[in-house]
Amino acid sequence: MIPREWLIDTAKRVYRSYGFSPIDTPALEYLEILTGKGGEESDKQLYRFEDHGGRSVGLRFDLTVPLARFVAQHIGQLGTPFKRYQVATVWRGENTQRGRYREFMQCDFDTIGTLSLAADIETVLVIHDLMRALGIEDFTIHLNNRLVLKGLLERLDLSDRATPILRAIDKLAKIGRERVVAEIASAGVSPEAAEDVLRLVEIRGPNSQILEQLERLSLGSPQAQEGTAKLAELLAAVTAAGIRPERVRIAPAIARGLDYYTGMIYETTLDRLPTIGSVCSGGRYDNLAKLYTHQELPGVGASLGLDRLLAALEELGLIAKVATPAPVFLAYFDRSRLHDYLRLAAQVRAAGIGVEFFCEPKKLGTQLKYADERGFRLALVLGEDEFAAGQCQLKDLATGKKTLIPINDGTAALIAEIRKHLGTQEVGRGQPR
Amino acid sequence: MIPREWLIDTAKRVYRSYGFSPIDTPALEYLEILTGKGGEESDKQLYRFEDHGGRSVGLRFDLTVPLARFVAQHIGQLGTPFKRYQVATVWRGENTQRGRYREFMQCDFDTIGTLSLAADIETVLVIHDLMRALGIEDFTIHLNNRLVLKGLLERLDLSDRATPILRAIDKLAKIGRERVVAEIASAGVSPEAAEDVLRLVEIRGPNSQILEQLERLSLGSPQAQEGTAKLAELLAAVTAAGIRPERVRIAPAIARGLDYYTGMIYETTLDRLPTIGSVCSGGRYDNLAKLYTHQELPGVGASLGLDRLLAALEELGLIAKVATPAPVFLAYFDRSRLHDYLRLAAQVRAAGIGVEFFCEPKKLGTQLKYADERGFRLALVLGEDEFAAGQCQLKDLATGKKTLIPINDGTAALIAEIRKHLGTQEVGRGQPR
Repeated sequence: MIPREWLIDTAKRVYRSYGFSPIDTPALEYLEILTGKGGEESDKQLYRFEDHGGRSVGLRFDLTVPLARFVAQHIGQLGTPFKRYQVATVWRGENTQRGRYREFMQCDFDTIGTLSLAADIETVLVIHDLMRALGIEDFTIHLNNRLVLKGLLERLDLSDRATPILRAIDKLAKIGRERVVAEIASAGVSPEAAEDVLRLVEIRGPNSQILEQLERLSLGSPQAQEGTAKLAELLAAVTAAGIRPERVRIAPAIARGLDYYTGMIYETTLDRLPTIGSVCSGGRYDNLAKLYTHQELPGVGASLGLDRLLAALEELGLIAKVATPAPVFLAYFDRSRLHDYLRLAAQVRAAGIGVEFFCEPKKLGTQLKYADERGFRLALVLGEDEFAAGQCQLKDLATGKKTLIPINDGTAALIAEIRKHLGTQEVGRGQPR
Repeated sequence: MIPREWLIDTAKRVYRSYGFSPIDTPALEYLEILTGKGGEESDKQLYRFEDHGGRSVGLRFDLTVPLARFVAQHIGQLGTPFKRYQVATVWRGENTQRGRYREFMQCDFDTIGTLSLAADIETVLVIHDLMRALGIEDFTIHLNNRLVLKGLLERLDLSDRATPILRAIDKLAKIGRERVVAEIASAGVSPEAAEDVLRLVEIRGPNSQILEQLERLSLGSPQAQEGTAKLAELLAAVTAAGIRPERVRIAPAIARGLDYYTGMIYETTLDRLPTIGSVCSGGRYDNLAKLYTHQELPGVGASLGLDRLLAALEELGLIAKVATPAPVFLAYFDRSRLHDYLRLAAQVRAAGIGVEFFCEPKKLGTQLKYADERGFRLALVLGEDEFAAGQCQLKDLATGKKTLIPINDGTAALIAEIRKHLGTQEVGRGQPR
């Protein structure tokens, strides 16, 4: 929970820094709001019951359906653009697997009510800042625009077979070229057309080359040309805003969210753990709340894969195994000095550094074992000798090194020494190392 | 939600600074865990249903029952003392009222597995630090110890009538002395004994006087004497730790949690809004998880009344009505300058200051109206004139005052000016004014 809260806090901090506001919606929605929104599977997995007033209700299975309901209900008052984030629990009554639970958290941000490319650009900037705020430096944001593939299919007169084609393409990495071509052909597509589609999704190389090839393939399709132009514009803008060019990649093969996304698509992979898949994904959609309101509400957003990212950070060693949010441990050594301990702890806390004071004057060994097990960084030990000498013993629990610091003239020297040991990052934050 | 998140973040920060760790438990517990724990009323209000595996489950109605289940299950691994906080949603299917909802949040912290007074002392320190971290300076923490009244009732041979007596006493402020005496008498208590009880709960005056009187009344009851001594000890310790003496008050009349609390009791009132009741309450209990384990797990803790406190802060004008977590607004004035705007926003954000960049190049008036309505503090405006002159126009949205700041040699001057306007407190935090 400690790294989890740190991750959530960090995501919120980044969202806020772009002006996204928090919203909350109830866990329980009227059943009619939830059913038929996520497909048959999702309906089957719904936790549903009748409340005390005889109303049929269900536990939300994602944050998008509640957002659509909320926006449809309140957009007049909210105004557009409406930028919101929501970090909340959702429930699905499915079989559990490793990293897949019946109750889990989603962590979404969206900009609603605008078609402007600036909102798409900002979505990439948010993902970028979020990764960096989490201490991740080696990551790649993959970009695509659904208009490119859609336009190409239209030109090839394959619009009505878009779904099986996209589904086959999605498996390219898994099942290989030949089987994808066969699957596309089995949907009644000519081998030449299948080749054309594959040529598009197989484009590789630096972004500038990919853009050139997309421009060539887009000839004759205004839609594909528009998609390509937007990709070029977005790429230029995020680079101008400070994203290192190697961190964004045009990826013509990604096609996520078959029916949902209509424009830009984003995926984020960790360069040192590519197999874990995308840790932050999203895209642009045409009409968020069409089931609840006639007002067209286009939007763009993304969702942080909290559990997946947490597993990845752990695997990459970016998360320390600690069971304390406070870095400093203060031993309770001498019962007659309780007031002195409390005063000292208060002074260190006032400097913004978390201190746990052990609540029982047990043997020092027992206390230090407790501190060690929980992953405290430093222990402060003061017995009668230290008090008599006007000193505090500071023990670095990782190295075992002890330092004596004078405290007769106040705690400034002690606090400086604690800061030196902790570095600036962890002080008072309780975040992972 | 903006002040709500700020309040929750602040509470967590204070809890962490004392070494309390976050825990999370599922919203759904097995029904047998929840029923019979909060009384008949609570059973009736339970949201319950059968899940897809045919298991009877319910939504938690508080955080104490899940904590007891969690601790009973894991205490061997956790070890003691176990200090945890939990901020989470609970559900009760009751009739809604102003400030009382079917879904609401609880915000608890507890120290489990210790009888040490140091844990009781720390509970008061946490409440104190929490109030101050929220910007509240005029508050009073009321202290009592159940042993005092319990011991007195034992000495008066009224232990078996404790419940009706305590219930009558709890109404003292509401129904007055005479009717309380009558109610106590109707429980079969002699008028003299009723007077003795009332003498205890009616003690007023400075803490030292109250303690003196409690000592006198406690004579002959070791239990009452123990309670009085602990109150004296706790008072001395929290004062030594830096709490101003007028902020803690011994209050012999408070008796909350009839069956639950067994030692210290805490309530916190706001001096400028006493009628709103206690905003942070708690106490010591003997055995948290007796229904789930044979291991005795005494503890002490308190709960922040989130909704009540939020209402109070609003009434006291300590919360600004803002709809943006970012203090600075950047207008999108000149489409050809998109890259410059994005770069500028990135630089201000890198300094830890939140900036919302408006995503559409609409008329400046429309954009500033949006910024005004949402409560931004400052707007940055750059059109062709400003770019040509290498300047940024900074507009204070509260005063309307405009300042021109050179930006040709970097954004340091602009950031300094923004900081000057915002003060240090709000920068990058998105918290209320």
